[in-house]
Amino acid sequence: MKEIIAYFKGDLEAAEKVINNNIHSTIKIIPSLSQYILESGGKRFRPLLVLASAALCGYRGEKAHMAACAAEYIHTATLLHDDVVDESDTRRGRTSANTIWGNEASVLVGDFLLARAFQMMVQYLNADALRVMAQACMHLAEGEILQLLKSFDINTTIEDYYQIIFGKTAALISACCEVGAILAGASEKERRALRDYGKELGYTFQIVDDCLDVVGDPGKTGKPLGNDLKEGKFTLPLLLALEKAEGKERRVIQEAVLENEFTPETFERVKAIIMRHKGVEGARKIAREHALSAMNQLKAFEDAPEKEYLIKVAQFTSEREA
Amino acid sequence: MKEIIAYFKGDLEAAEKVINNNIHSTIKIIPSLSQYILESGGKRFRPLLVLASAALCGYRGEKAHMAACAAEYIHTATLLHDDVVDESDTRRGRTSANTIWGNEASVLVGDFLLARAFQMMVQYLNADALRVMAQACMHLAEGEILQLLKSFDINTTIEDYYQIIFGKTAALISACCEVGAILAGASEKERRALRDYGKELGYTFQIVDDCLDVVGDPGKTGKPLGNDLKEGKFTLPLLLALEKAEGKERRVIQEAVLENEFTPETFERVKAIIMRHKGVEGARKIAREHALSAMNQLKAFEDAPEKEYLIKVAQFTSEREA
Repeated sequence: MKEIIAYFKGDLEAAEKVINNNIHSTIKIIPSLSQYILESGGKRFRPLLVLASAALCGYRGEKAHMAACAAEYIHTATLLHDDVVDESDTRRGRTSANTIWGNEASVLVGDFLLARAFQMMVQYLNADALRVMAQACMHLAEGEILQLLKSFDINTTIEDYYQIIFGKTAALISACCEVGAILAGASEKERRALRDYGKELGYTFQIVDDCLDVVGDPGKTGKPLGNDLKEGKFTLPLLLALEKAEGKERRVIQEAVLENEFTPETFERVKAIIMRHKGVEGARKIAREHALSAMNQLKAFEDAPEKEYLIKVAQFTSEREA
Repeated sequence: MKEIIAYFKGDLEAAEKVINNNIHSTIKIIPSLSQYILESGGKRFRPLLVLASAALCGYRGEKAHMAACAAEYIHTATLLHDDVVDESDTRRGRTSANTIWGNEASVLVGDFLLARAFQMMVQYLNADALRVMAQACMHLAEGEILQLLKSFDINTTIEDYYQIIFGKTAALISACCEVGAILAGASEKERRALRDYGKELGYTFQIVDDCLDVVGDPGKTGKPLGNDLKEGKFTLPLLLALEKAEGKERRVIQEAVLENEFTPETFERVKAIIMRHKGVEGARKIAREHALSAMNQLKAFEDAPEKEYLIKVAQFTSEREA
């Protein structure tokens, strides 16, 4: 990724400036809390995708920086609301904002970031791009709600899982890529290609995330293992294992999920079942397929450095360890 | 108000239909929870103001119904997020949504309503109206955050109070009126008049609300008395009393606010101090002044039934008992 980040250095720095400069308010907790969460090791994945997609279609400039910032604010708002929902104590290895400032402030500063994103988009995006972003926000909320409903439900299907990750991850990533195309005034064909690229990339990203929750190195990811299981989330590695699990194993998983206290031993018990049925291996394979599908969409474009970089982003995303 | 509601019956019904028809989702909790809170006795004050303002400037039609719906969704989302913040058990006399469905669902369905509002606005409003609504959303979030920060703070000033109620109430009401004007393609002068009318009306509305928390009839308002004090909110009746209170009375109030258990006796003790210093009387008087100021803005318009109705809305708002 270093090469890609270097290529977009100027734009990324400009977007970063916009991100930092639009959280001011006379109410000091707003910049403090916003800054805290915005600085907590986010990869600026969505901003990068807006910038790279726009550049691939021939546009670099202020509107892309603004759209990149809006996308990051929307993403950050969902993190803040998520932490309240999950009652998380940590986020990316740091104390979560709701633990420091309280759930109330996290909800309301999330709302502030959404409103600011809305305001920036209204100022800098055209009607087409606004529609795409609004649709993504709808999907985001739906995905989060479905995830909440399906948590602790062992009857969650792989179809449910896809509906959840489309909403909570793929929809916004897809919108970032499509908005990049729209900003550049790209053709319908290019727009669709980038929209589909983003969707497949989003699936890749989330599935790998879910694998790292089982087998990642907390030293690299900054996240404790087994968080999803603790929160009752049935992710792809677990769902693939459940497809092959026997009655007894299902019961072990069911009990583990419902246990009041989620201990490292509980996690190891479930992890053993996932590994026995090659759940992580299977999910990693599916993630690679989505990454390939993402790359394939880019055939709609002539060869260009930006195209190569977006191909590498998909490849890197499917192989990442953090 | 009956006369006014009758005059706008067709438009109000059309807006109500839009409100009910845009909360569908394959995820059933979304329409269930949304319907529950949307049906819980809201007065559709903001929709009425969009419709009446647009009509005053010469427009009646679909765009106004859509804008009215979006405003109601935004308002409803803040109620949902508010109840999570306040840890309320009841809202308008009914069990609050967060008590039935949980804080998580309330936060996320609030986000859904915000996203849906955003989507509808993007589809039906022009750039000008979008800017006004986005700005109002920013003020809303800021007002809620400031209210949270200033709760349980006896050093809250009347200036703080105005900043809070501008954000949490007046800004959106003002935006509703201004958007009505924009939909009708009104002149800058008319737009400003309706914007200021809405702001003054918003102050009136909130100040009366705060009076009813002290002296209202719960049978009429559907709200228990003393809720604001229980939540540590220093509202205008209390702030006016505090300006005149002696050291001993200040201590009584300070202790009452900080008491762990907020009993009817605590409330009566504080109410006695408010009444002794004519806090409610003073606040009612200020509310009437804001109502007059609202009415004065309408001088920018020729005589018309819509103008008469908006004057009556301001009058009614300043005198209301529920």
